[in-house]
Amino acid sequence: MSSARTNLEKLFNPSSISIIGASAREGSIGFNLVQNLQISGYAGKIWPVNPKYPEVLGLKCFSALEDTPEAAELTLVAVPAENVNDVIRRSCEKGARMFIIISSGFDEVGRHDLTHELLTILKQYNARTLGPNVFGVFSASSNMNATFGPPQVRRGNVGLISQSGALGVALMGKSVSDNIGLSAVVSLGNEADISEGEALEYLGQDPATEVIFMYMEGCKEGRHFMEVANRVSMTKPIVIIKSGSSSRGALAAASHTGSLAGSDKIFSAAIKQAGVIRAFNLTDAFNWTRALANLPLPTAEGTVIVTNGGGVGVMASDSAERYDVKLNDNLEMLERIFRPTMPAFGSSKNPIDVTGQARNEEYGLALKASLEEETIPSVVGLYCTPATMDVLKFANTAVEYTANLRGKKPLIFSIIGGGSVPEAIRILNEHNIPCYETPDEAMSAMGVLYKRWKWLNKEPGIPEEFDMDLKAIRAIIDAAHEKNQTQLVESDCAEILRLAGLEFPKTAIARDLDEAIKASEDIGYPVVMKILSQDIVHKTEYGCVKLDLEDEREVRVAYESIMAEARRHFPRARIEGVTITEMVTDATEMILGFSMDQSFGPVLMFGMGGIYVEVLKDVSFRVAPISKQECEHMVKAINSYPILAGARGKAIRDLPKIVEAISRLSYLAMHTPDILELDINPLMALAKGKGCKVVDSRMTISKVQRNKNMEEKA
Amino acid sequence: MSSARTNLEKLFNPSSISIIGASAREGSIGFNLVQNLQISGYAGKIWPVNPKYPEVLGLKCFSALEDTPEAAELTLVAVPAENVNDVIRRSCEKGARMFIIISSGFDEVGRHDLTHELLTILKQYNARTLGPNVFGVFSASSNMNATFGPPQVRRGNVGLISQSGALGVALMGKSVSDNIGLSAVVSLGNEADISEGEALEYLGQDPATEVIFMYMEGCKEGRHFMEVANRVSMTKPIVIIKSGSSSRGALAAASHTGSLAGSDKIFSAAIKQAGVIRAFNLTDAFNWTRALANLPLPTAEGTVIVTNGGGVGVMASDSAERYDVKLNDNLEMLERIFRPTMPAFGSSKNPIDVTGQARNEEYGLALKASLEEETIPSVVGLYCTPATMDVLKFANTAVEYTANLRGKKPLIFSIIGGGSVPEAIRILNEHNIPCYETPDEAMSAMGVLYKRWKWLNKEPGIPEEFDMDLKAIRAIIDAAHEKNQTQLVESDCAEILRLAGLEFPKTAIARDLDEAIKASEDIGYPVVMKILSQDIVHKTEYGCVKLDLEDEREVRVAYESIMAEARRHFPRARIEGVTITEMVTDATEMILGFSMDQSFGPVLMFGMGGIYVEVLKDVSFRVAPISKQECEHMVKAINSYPILAGARGKAIRDLPKIVEAISRLSYLAMHTPDILELDINPLMALAKGKGCKVVDSRMTISKVQRNKNMEEKA
Repeated sequence: MSSARTNLEKLFNPSSISIIGASAREGSIGFNLVQNLQISGYAGKIWPVNPKYPEVLGLKCFSALEDTPEAAELTLVAVPAENVNDVIRRSCEKGARMFIIISSGFDEVGRHDLTHELLTILKQYNARTLGPNVFGVFSASSNMNATFGPPQVRRGNVGLISQSGALGVALMGKSVSDNIGLSAVVSLGNEADISEGEALEYLGQDPATEVIFMYMEGCKEGRHFMEVANRVSMTKPIVIIKSGSSSRGALAAASHTGSLAGSDKIFSAAIKQAGVIRAFNLTDAFNWTRALANLPLPTAEGTVIVTNGGGVGVMASDSAERYDVKLNDNLEMLERIFRPTMPAFGSSKNPIDVTGQARNEEYGLALKASLEEETIPSVVGLYCTPATMDVLKFANTAVEYTANLRGKKPLIFSIIGGGSVPEAIRILNEHNIPCYETPDEAMSAMGVLYKRWKWLNKEPGIPEEFDMDLKAIRAIIDAAHEKNQTQLVESDCAEILRLAGLEFPKTAIARDLDEAIKASEDIGYPVVMKILSQDIVHKTEYGCVKLDLEDEREVRVAYESIMAEARRHFPRARIEGVTITEMVTDATEMILGFSMDQSFGPVLMFGMGGIYVEVLKDVSFRVAPISKQECEHMVKAINSYPILAGARGKAIRDLPKIVEAISRLSYLAMHTPDILELDINPLMALAKGKGCKVVDSRMTISKVQRNKNMEEKA
Repeated sequence: MSSARTNLEKLFNPSSISIIGASAREGSIGFNLVQNLQISGYAGKIWPVNPKYPEVLGLKCFSALEDTPEAAELTLVAVPAENVNDVIRRSCEKGARMFIIISSGFDEVGRHDLTHELLTILKQYNARTLGPNVFGVFSASSNMNATFGPPQVRRGNVGLISQSGALGVALMGKSVSDNIGLSAVVSLGNEADISEGEALEYLGQDPATEVIFMYMEGCKEGRHFMEVANRVSMTKPIVIIKSGSSSRGALAAASHTGSLAGSDKIFSAAIKQAGVIRAFNLTDAFNWTRALANLPLPTAEGTVIVTNGGGVGVMASDSAERYDVKLNDNLEMLERIFRPTMPAFGSSKNPIDVTGQARNEEYGLALKASLEEETIPSVVGLYCTPATMDVLKFANTAVEYTANLRGKKPLIFSIIGGGSVPEAIRILNEHNIPCYETPDEAMSAMGVLYKRWKWLNKEPGIPEEFDMDLKAIRAIIDAAHEKNQTQLVESDCAEILRLAGLEFPKTAIARDLDEAIKASEDIGYPVVMKILSQDIVHKTEYGCVKLDLEDEREVRVAYESIMAEARRHFPRARIEGVTITEMVTDATEMILGFSMDQSFGPVLMFGMGGIYVEVLKDVSFRVAPISKQECEHMVKAINSYPILAGARGKAIRDLPKIVEAISRLSYLAMHTPDILELDINPLMALAKGKGCKVVDSRMTISKVQRNKNMEEKA
């Protein structure tokens, strides 16, 4: 686990830096790199290299990289793309092992050949590089601004990782005005070598970094990234803003799982599982990061809102519901705590309204009381600036009355108004009270603290192990491989699911009418009758399936009808008889499956079946394997969950069996890499205690065998 | 229509103002009112009244209101609540007719008696008042800041109406820093007399006001407000932010329509119908208002994004989808227009990426080209601030290159970065280029322009008229009134719907088994059999309903069974026979109804029926009456609409008949005020051409008759 730390240490804390392509021309990248290193107070050695200049910014400039006193611990490369690999090779020869390739002109313009050559060189020398096509690295702990981004960086505890160069530079700038202090900045660029996962892992172990803010556009190694994110999330919050959708998903559009998934949904599900907080716009991303970087997490639900205006109080209550922040409703406690702090016509019901006529001191006392009262776990303060009062004085009062109390529970503010309000907001932010322009933003930030608190406190769980005959399952798949099938036949599909422990409706084969009647009676009416013939496809369409047969008479009629239709449409078909199957009634149609995502591996899907899955797309995703608890969450995550839980008098479904079915599929997916896709549709959920049964399923397997290794391990 | 203008003219443009309760004490409300009038440059007469002071802020102060030279055209009242009515009466005696009651202490503290007395006085003198409990009125056209809010107001074209005092004052302040200029501000307070609808109507006719921004908490006279909003929206955009939910809805929680509606949903539906743009947080409200106040509407879809960073381009594209902004995909045109303006590796695909290496002039040329090209209807510019460039120079370039071109189509900007970015944003805003901190906000503002454009361009439609026997319908209701029924019996309910032109499954009454068999054959199998007895309730629960009877044999069995059950459970019931009804198969269950909202009047509801309506709440609302087109929109508005439109091979439903059913209910609702609530559940939608049929319905009528007047008119 400390490998990333060790591996990338020199990228963040080198004792010497070469800048190949340093420049004395103001405004150039080679100039800015040297200048930013100087401005940031980097204490190590700085060795500019460029034959054109004797010195750069007062530093001796070397005419060739071979001339530097020794190999630098970190080499910045800012020369034309065509020359980069030569520079890397020569630097490696001299002993350099860590690079930042600033230069663009590689994969992003189609020059995969240059990347290929680069990787060969790195491998040869066991060297590493960030980039190409990056703006550099900032590291607060070594006072190193090795970027051509903004020279002034606000120091703090937030690590910024960006897959976009232009945006990354702009975000570095914006962090200053948004009161967000940075511990480190990493520009990922093309990720020819060092990946987003490795960068994240490093910052996860960096003592100066307490919160990580990532801008992402894609995720090459989803599963690895997710594992790292999950580890890091245990101790540090990660806020990710990801844009766009990629064509990474390998799922066939025709299948349910595939068409519903889309790689962005999988990404979203995966990082959520890993505890990552995903923002969908920059405002949220900055707002949330600021709260996470400055505040302790709450230790219970029951937020108190203190306000000097009823209107904003109501708005904040609306937002609380929107962001799932539970408000404190201990009226007795609230009255006891807050009544003494407010005018007679104030309200001690949450929101605590000290009214617009409250003086700063009264508001301050209410705030102080809210922080002192131990049963109040978190506080949101709202302030509408009256025209007759000095908002700066209010801000200072708020700071003063909460001094020494702020570190114990989260306190978030919103101040609305003009004049000095931006300055008042700045004052609160400077004192680690995240303050926003609107009540909605304040409550949204509080919502994120609770989201993280809940994730950290959720029951841990390990994936269940099942006693599944994996050998038999793989034998079926191997046999299909032999026959060059990629789509398993119905019976193979059913057999695999049976071996995986899923339940099916009772069924029997009948060679003639008498057997059909007997089978129907054994199974119990109503039953379904289906032609049994390998030569007949689209059975339903050709009248070879009859549903809901309720007695012997109906079985007789159905049998004659099916045989007649079969002979009419398929005169040459070999007919082996019919299958008689239990008719599943009082069941809720669901869909369950998994598919093999190229980036994230096996991804499970669960949802309501039938026409609703198509139209309402009411499905949930998880990256396998997942624990039994997570299977439960997956079931509860769909909007139609109340239908399964017995809404409006409908009998509750057999939830434990649904959960077990998901858990078994999770296990199956992890042990059969050859199954690229599996859809059970419908999976019929019966009433409590009656199980859930597979009615139809489809399975796609890989063209080439992947099982071999697994089998040896199994 | 000009009544509001005439009525409230003196509230906004008085030639003289008395301030009863003026004060020389700095910081007091009575002081601020006088001071703000002076600072704003009000040119009319100002008459402070207070026996305590000989003068206030250099103005002669009168010791009694009777002492002023004449009755002021507008009287501000800022005395203790107990004295207000006396002041009003005496002012009216002197001839005053328009008041602003600043004082609080009326309804909001339970003093309804004071309000009642106030209204009596106003009525007696035919006088009007704003308030009580307001911060005043600002009117740019008469340079009148008659508020105790901020003295400095940015003048512009936005009219602000606030139901909250504290928030209203804060919003006035915020408008300055948010670059929003105000034409008028109205604080509504308790609305004892002048309502939100009247204030809206006035600003709708005020030439200085081009956009209206409202903060609302409740809506007393919903229907009137909606009608005004609809009229005003035709010429001026209205942005409303409404908080909280009220208990205004008169719908019984037990019924479907009622429990699903909730007054906030009805409010939302109503103002959307009226073309109002509803914001759910202050950030959106301000952002959208700024765009609407500064930009022309687009005239077509096909927005072009110009950017200097790929990452923000992707983010903006994501946002475009989120806010339903269609991006231009005329690749040939885009290549022709933009290729000449960008470096070789730039992209002319939308987003147009001039790249981070583009100089200001290149970006400026791309902007200019986008504005000059007539087939591009709207433009979003994105800028990531590079560390090496001066963002202020960029802002000035953007202003310069778009000069004389900006008024023709909307141009919206987002600039990301630190340093001088806030100043750069200010420069663009000053030049009527709404500029935001994030691409998402820019695209959201563009989305609102398109939303308004679409509303203005939607097909107008008038509600359909039907040849309905309203007299017969009212006779049924009147008969129920005679019997003191509020819940109509099943047969009455069905008869009303039949008279309203809705369709029912074929049905017949059978007195004995033979008749039942004959009726079943006449109607056609399968059929439903139900006991016919006024004395038997909960028929299904007691086994007195049998579904899906497929032949004579099943009819016989069902008949015997029903009779046996009926006799067993209800030995004394008078049994008249059974009803035989067509069994509706291959149908989609829907729910359709209306309820009489106390504020908005008849509100229609449509949605998917069955268990889904409860769980997924997939319903749409409209305030009746609505046109046929709007009925169609109502059907299309539900998420499950694709199911009705024939998703995944399921036959398309009879959409014209569904639309007709809604339209008929709209007509019925408007002509039968005695029906408080009507639920058709389920309404069975059959395949195209086969209609939609009422299977069950419930109707609640008022306790007292309201029909009488209607009947006379009819």
